[in-house]
Amino acid sequence: MRAPDLSVGVRCAFFIEDAEDDAMITPEEALALITSHVGPLPPCKVPLADAVGCALAEPLVARLDLPPFDNSAMDGYAVRAADLADASREAPVSLRLRGEAPAGRPSSLALAQREAVRILTGAPLPDGADAVVMQEKTEREGECVKVFVAPLLGANIRPRGEDVKAQTPLLAAGGSLRPYEIGLLASQGIAEVEVVPWPTAAVLATGSELTAPGTQLEPGRIYNSNGPALGAALRRWGVTVRDLGTAPDDPVAMASALRPAVGACDLVLVAGGVSVGDYDYTRSVFQSFGFDEVFYKVAVKPGKPLLFGRIPAGKSGRGAWAFGLPGNPLSALVSLEEFVRPAIERMRGVTLAQPSYHLHGRALNAYPLPKDRQQFLFCRATAKGDVFALDVIRPQGSAMSKMATGANALAVARLGMGVVREGDLLPFRWLK
Amino acid sequence: MRAPDLSVGVRCAFFIEDAEDDAMITPEEALALITSHVGPLPPCKVPLADAVGCALAEPLVARLDLPPFDNSAMDGYAVRAADLADASREAPVSLRLRGEAPAGRPSSLALAQREAVRILTGAPLPDGADAVVMQEKTEREGECVKVFVAPLLGANIRPRGEDVKAQTPLLAAGGSLRPYEIGLLASQGIAEVEVVPWPTAAVLATGSELTAPGTQLEPGRIYNSNGPALGAALRRWGVTVRDLGTAPDDPVAMASALRPAVGACDLVLVAGGVSVGDYDYTRSVFQSFGFDEVFYKVAVKPGKPLLFGRIPAGKSGRGAWAFGLPGNPLSALVSLEEFVRPAIERMRGVTLAQPSYHLHGRALNAYPLPKDRQQFLFCRATAKGDVFALDVIRPQGSAMSKMATGANALAVARLGMGVVREGDLLPFRWLK
Repeated sequence: MRAPDLSVGVRCAFFIEDAEDDAMITPEEALALITSHVGPLPPCKVPLADAVGCALAEPLVARLDLPPFDNSAMDGYAVRAADLADASREAPVSLRLRGEAPAGRPSSLALAQREAVRILTGAPLPDGADAVVMQEKTEREGECVKVFVAPLLGANIRPRGEDVKAQTPLLAAGGSLRPYEIGLLASQGIAEVEVVPWPTAAVLATGSELTAPGTQLEPGRIYNSNGPALGAALRRWGVTVRDLGTAPDDPVAMASALRPAVGACDLVLVAGGVSVGDYDYTRSVFQSFGFDEVFYKVAVKPGKPLLFGRIPAGKSGRGAWAFGLPGNPLSALVSLEEFVRPAIERMRGVTLAQPSYHLHGRALNAYPLPKDRQQFLFCRATAKGDVFALDVIRPQGSAMSKMATGANALAVARLGMGVVREGDLLPFRWLK
Repeated sequence: MRAPDLSVGVRCAFFIEDAEDDAMITPEEALALITSHVGPLPPCKVPLADAVGCALAEPLVARLDLPPFDNSAMDGYAVRAADLADASREAPVSLRLRGEAPAGRPSSLALAQREAVRILTGAPLPDGADAVVMQEKTEREGECVKVFVAPLLGANIRPRGEDVKAQTPLLAAGGSLRPYEIGLLASQGIAEVEVVPWPTAAVLATGSELTAPGTQLEPGRIYNSNGPALGAALRRWGVTVRDLGTAPDDPVAMASALRPAVGACDLVLVAGGVSVGDYDYTRSVFQSFGFDEVFYKVAVKPGKPLLFGRIPAGKSGRGAWAFGLPGNPLSALVSLEEFVRPAIERMRGVTLAQPSYHLHGRALNAYPLPKDRQQFLFCRATAKGDVFALDVIRPQGSAMSKMATGANALAVARLGMGVVREGDLLPFRWLK
């Protein structure tokens, strides 16, 4: 028999019907529940080199003044400013050169009147000196140096404690350790630091149709793309990932695939099997581990089935936060970025520096919206002066992986917008 | 003797004199030289899990249609749309149930007139079916199913090849592999991929005053903060770092510290010893390795001494791009982010998706600028509607590490601005 013409189907992909479901919560409610339930992991001490990106677990007090001694901000001559009050290009003042103050050791020299000491950047200031004249404003003459400027008191000197005073607060707890903080800690001599660690996550993709990439694809089956994509996102953030591969739509097989990870990981993620279909076992498998459910469905598209709760600590190990993610590839990844990532940030004890959707752009084209769900829209964003233009990709469906690779931005059409019209201002974030 | 009063010095930190120097190039010229000199590293094949964040080294063509077969977008019933043309809530149409089409295997069923097949999300469509009715719009009655809607042709069907058609271009070379691309590659069954790898970098901090964090600090010395801070930034980006520790201001010691890394790393970074002082040996040490210099000084603040060029391949191994970075902590980190990172992106074969300074904010306060250099300003940025407010931190000096930890943004005051005035619009980026 002739294959049915499905060209209309492609056009109709926009209009896949939604089930009515009163049990959905809003994305804001979901985020509030995640934020209120999930807390920081127990802190641990790590070498400074491993601490970048982690939250500091305890407030730190400065051990040292920084700089630890008055020192020169440049190569030149340490002088007494009063000796040079009348110096100028036309009337240079000659000072007797007493020697050199290199970096790395305290100066044993002390300046008397009309004396200078050759000094290098970072070198401790000799006693008696109260200014540094840069080399370019001087001229050597045997045992003397001619100075062509009248320096201000303190010129080109970095005074002890200018940046940090010992015994004052250095860094607050909870801040993320960027390279700038790592540098500050190192400059205090700190080689190990107490941080909230990154969580470890187990990832299981479920579905009897799933086949591992790199192996032969049998008819009716598809490759497991959720495992690799979710793992890639997690690893890129810094999470250590335990890839559990795939499990068929069978609660015994699923539970047995999860068992080694429960108790050993901080986060358990299962993609697929989370709807209300006859073969959706994720919820009951979580329940078999004593799951304490927080929510089940969120009014977002792509997405909606999104199971969240706690698998308690047992005799086999620590407790874990567990998410059942939708099985469609884009639903799974967007759910990970929008809902699992905030849980990870909470586990990491991180206070986010800026909101996710602080950028805004104007839609270049219209897009129909579901009436009961917030829609995330895959877009091509381009800068247009101060604002961005958002080309909303059409069509976009939650299984259209290639479509998403053409997007560089994800825009949000909030619940109740009805429809996106050309020119509407939408918040968006970069897809990274 | 009484210590001189240096309180004026703190205020004068803004006005540290600049040496006149005609040899400086503009930051734009420096970036253009980096971009034109540095090219991608040789590609290599890596497992998909290690490819995230890397540039694809070769264009890929689709092996498979995606989806690979017509399948259901939801749980429901596969039907023939024509049978249901008159179906409605008031006048449901009853279809004979032929069985079930689960996911994971091709359906052996074929629909005749007024027949339906129970179908689950992702399951192959049985022959003869041309629409799927969602479960919620039906009612089971023994061997029959009552349907309350007239589906459009193709409704709730994902047709074979909707997202990807076999033998069409899948991904272009040079694109960065985000989790979305990793998912797409996995869905094509691809388990290994040819990418441009991340470079390996050697980091050496020079200065006779430097002491390793975690050890005792002798008078006149400071802790090595550049090594840890630069290493942290590089590691966070994904670069494999070889930390060479510190070397004193001595060309023989510096060369011997660098020697094991030259030939073994793609990037050689030396912080400090790069000015024109009596003890600045970085340039001559690079020259001892056959250094081919591209530029030496860039008109930026913090920064300016910034040495860039190529250490050629020798009998001991591959060639490397080499940077001599200024020794002041903030000069070193800002130079790394502004100039070394673009070199790394070029080595990685990555085309940046968006410009670094596409955000803009209005200065909340005035700030004096050097006349001959572009100034990077450490700021606290806060969102104010569509624009940002930039609180420019005062004072800021290139050795003030703690000051920088209070900043979340780096703004740019371009060459020739003269001064930043309250209300001036400045481009900025987040400090991450």
